[in-house]
Amino acid sequence: MSRFAPMPEPPYYAVIFTAQRTAGDSGYGAMADKMMELAEEQPGYIGVETTRDADGLGITVSYWADEEALIAWKKVSEHLLAQKLGKFRWYSHYTLRVAKVERGYEGPEGR
Amino acid sequence: MSRFAPMPEPPYYAVIFTAQRTAGDSGYGAMADKMMELAEEQPGYIGVETTRDADGLGITVSYWADEEALIAWKKVSEHLLAQKLGKFRWYSHYTLRVAKVERGYEGPEGR
Repeated sequence: MSRFAPMPEPPYYAVIFTAQRTAGDSGYGAMADKMMELAEEQPGYIGVETTRDADGLGITVSYWADEEALIAWKKVSEHLLAQKLGKFRWYSHYTLRVAKVERGYEGPEGR
Repeated sequence: MSRFAPMPEPPYYAVIFTAQRTAGDSGYGAMADKMMELAEEQPGYIGVETTRDADGLGITVSYWADEEALIAWKKVSEHLLAQKLGKFRWYSHYTLRVAKVERGYEGPEGR
């Protein structure tokens, strides 16, 4: 499975979630898998890109067709639950930014 | 040094760069350090968040005050050079998306 999200014609939305994990799993892995499954079922879901280094700093960017899609996703109850638990258990710090993608490129070119 | 970028009042711009590294360093580390130094000197630079997992998938998000700032950065010659070399040597695949940040939050709250 590709770890890159599709590149549809802009505009569409990106949710950029950067987070520092605390030590230990504490149910995080299972929650993250479940969240990914739920996201894929949502209307307007385009894809996700996620990575985390050995120090626990992760960046997850999910892509959504329009603002309606990301608002709907935010409302999904298990997502809300995960957000709530995350605040107290899984992350020492996080930032979340919602951004409208205006253009995109991919490569490498010329191969 | 914090690995989180500042959270200014939106709107501002995000450049989301997702890339799969090839094996070996091939001068990548030195180039990446130099790029980071150059970015910090640019007008309109807000900050950067970057992480990469053991499989070589990295996500780097740089934040810029306005479109002018990101166009200027794109033109910096060493950046262009790095892009060019990157296409042929450092990455097996990459995507770059330019997005306008509309809102942002950070946490954890309630601690």
